[in-house]
Amino acid sequence: MPDGTMSTGGGPLTVGGLGEAGILRILNRRFAAVPASQDWPEGTVGPGDDAAVVAAPDGRFVITTDAMAQDRDFRMTWPAASSPGATAATRAGGSFAGGYATGWKAAAQNLSDINAMGAEPSGLLLALTMPSSTSLAWIEGLAAGLAAAVIHLGASRCRVVGGDLGSDDRITLAVTATGDLQGRAPSRRTLSVGRQDLPEGSDPGLDLILSGQAGWAAAGLDVLDTGRDELLRRLEAAEEAGLPGVRRAAALAASAQLRPRPPLGAGQRAAESGALAMMDVSDGLLKDTGRLAAANRLHAELDPEWVQAEARALRPLAQALDRDAEHWVRAGGEDYGLLAVLPAGGSAGSRLPAGFRRIGRLVSRAAAETAGGEEQSGAETNGGPDGWDHFSAPFRSRPQIR
Amino acid sequence: MPDGTMSTGGGPLTVGGLGEAGILRILNRRFAAVPASQDWPEGTVGPGDDAAVVAAPDGRFVITTDAMAQDRDFRMTWPAASSPGATAATRAGGSFAGGYATGWKAAAQNLSDINAMGAEPSGLLLALTMPSSTSLAWIEGLAAGLAAAVIHLGASRCRVVGGDLGSDDRITLAVTATGDLQGRAPSRRTLSVGRQDLPEGSDPGLDLILSGQAGWAAAGLDVLDTGRDELLRRLEAAEEAGLPGVRRAAALAASAQLRPRPPLGAGQRAAESGALAMMDVSDGLLKDTGRLAAANRLHAELDPEWVQAEARALRPLAQALDRDAEHWVRAGGEDYGLLAVLPAGGSAGSRLPAGFRRIGRLVSRAAAETAGGEEQSGAETNGGPDGWDHFSAPFRSRPQIR
Repeated sequence: MPDGTMSTGGGPLTVGGLGEAGILRILNRRFAAVPASQDWPEGTVGPGDDAAVVAAPDGRFVITTDAMAQDRDFRMTWPAASSPGATAATRAGGSFAGGYATGWKAAAQNLSDINAMGAEPSGLLLALTMPSSTSLAWIEGLAAGLAAAVIHLGASRCRVVGGDLGSDDRITLAVTATGDLQGRAPSRRTLSVGRQDLPEGSDPGLDLILSGQAGWAAAGLDVLDTGRDELLRRLEAAEEAGLPGVRRAAALAASAQLRPRPPLGAGQRAAESGALAMMDVSDGLLKDTGRLAAANRLHAELDPEWVQAEARALRPLAQALDRDAEHWVRAGGEDYGLLAVLPAGGSAGSRLPAGFRRIGRLVSRAAAETAGGEEQSGAETNGGPDGWDHFSAPFRSRPQIR
Repeated sequence: MPDGTMSTGGGPLTVGGLGEAGILRILNRRFAAVPASQDWPEGTVGPGDDAAVVAAPDGRFVITTDAMAQDRDFRMTWPAASSPGATAATRAGGSFAGGYATGWKAAAQNLSDINAMGAEPSGLLLALTMPSSTSLAWIEGLAAGLAAAVIHLGASRCRVVGGDLGSDDRITLAVTATGDLQGRAPSRRTLSVGRQDLPEGSDPGLDLILSGQAGWAAAGLDVLDTGRDELLRRLEAAEEAGLPGVRRAAALAASAQLRPRPPLGAGQRAAESGALAMMDVSDGLLKDTGRLAAANRLHAELDPEWVQAEARALRPLAQALDRDAEHWVRAGGEDYGLLAVLPAGGSAGSRLPAGFRRIGRLVSRAAAETAGGEEQSGAETNGGPDGWDHFSAPFRSRPQIR
């Protein structure tokens, strides 16, 4: 039991009786589990002051922020040990209600953005608003999950450097991450000008490569959205019908949704290998390859054979849940893989960085219209079935997890 | 009318039909008004990528974040031109609903934290969640107010470098600010060890100094919380009773609440003048001087004569509203003045930096008990009447502006 906690009439312990100082004690104790927290270099300042001071060895730093709202970007009821997605990590988070997965995801999606700039994470800040009825278990889980993601994703030089607490009727959190650069930061728009202005129909010779998986987090959301009894019934029926490994696939998919694993370090490797542009895949391959292409006035084509191969391991689970495995792969978000552009394979400049696979290519617009590949719109169109837009029309009024 | 906006059945225009790209266009056009946005130095990256890249000339950077929730930290109904607090700046924000004041405050309180570390603001990030029913006027106001604060507070090297949009039932925003350092960053705890361990009852010789005003923002909240008709009635009655300048004081107070003016630059000046510790005053002088003292195992005493003098200009307004002007000065938050500690006056080391006034001193604990001054608790006690704690017990269930 944390120091200073108070019972509120026999119900679950809540943050209401703790005061800001008490809540900060709980958070800071969990954040101290992050290895780099043991060492604050000369000239840096950690939490507890008006602002933190963070080292920027390159004379620049990378920074990103993401907001998450209750029932939109996370669920209070996200499962713990008893779910089909139970793994060692889930069981460790079992007493933390949905907070553990929420903290993990908040850290992971921000660390992924740092990775996508070819940088190494250096700091996290947590701005949190919540009602006084928020359970201590949830807040302990949030902090533990956030620290666990930093540790298990390998962000070994990253610390929680600050934050802010506020009260509200619902929980929202905004995590900010910073990172160190070493050399150039390939953005979404760094394809050389010469390549952008190719004649229509010509092939710019640009491969799309991916580190990390695609479709598993979306499959996991479908697993988590299926009622427990219904899920067990469907998995049993699938096993009886001879579909192999559906239980294990369901567990892996839930884990991919609750504890996504962006391939930290892949950004730096790709940058060193000559990647011309990079971005992380948060809203699905179709949407995000389309954005990357559009930023360079090109079109993206996913290799249909790669999509089929990537969908293979998901197919039995998709069948059990009446879903389409290839749709998960093409349109499913939140896997936080790293997408990059590399000069096309052949004799020169085509060395694939470790951990990456070729998944398609960028083509000029006219080429896209004649190619037999999987054509996509590069425009920032409505989310619809092909990816996620928070404010697409018609606005989705029911809670949605992007 | 912004490009691409859509009417929703004749009602006010909302963000629901715009999509993320449309909302981003509105925000980015407003943020482009910030002077530094015209120039992104080589090697830096602005909004539109996975993350931004910001220069850190000192090899370090300062960073802080603050969350604000609808009806807690800001109000949708914050007034525009027709209020008694109308000034040129308010009238400029008149068509923006409450968004303008919200954006200004969000920027101001974060820039204030950067100032309190002796740094110069370099970047802002905005993480925003909102319902699809949010009016375009509000969001335009938010962006315009944020940009206006950067411009009018003199953060001339600060840009909006990134952000994030999400949907939620209510509006929350989390602003992150970064800053450049030149030399040391006086924190709250940088008093030298020798001074911390003085014998009980001895005088450590440390003056409390303040740049900026105290009490006006709290007075402004009382002005804004008084119904319009009631306020006009009270102001007229006060004028008839011969109280001088109450209308003007009400306007200045409302402006202090809606558009606080942290003294940017004062942090760097104080650091150069040998300030030993600094922090900004967000939760009121009593609470914040208490925190600064407690961080150094000392007590804070406000000079009663200074409090009386500071309250003088607020007294007629306080009388009109049946409030206590000295309580506004001592306990009122959100003026975002800069508090610093300087070696006590005399021959050596006592040069007051420009814009600062001496408002009290730090004393050892035993000295505090015998001194006749205004004694305060250094402990992080309940907010109560002496300052604001978001999670004080009992939790305040009615909307409160800190």
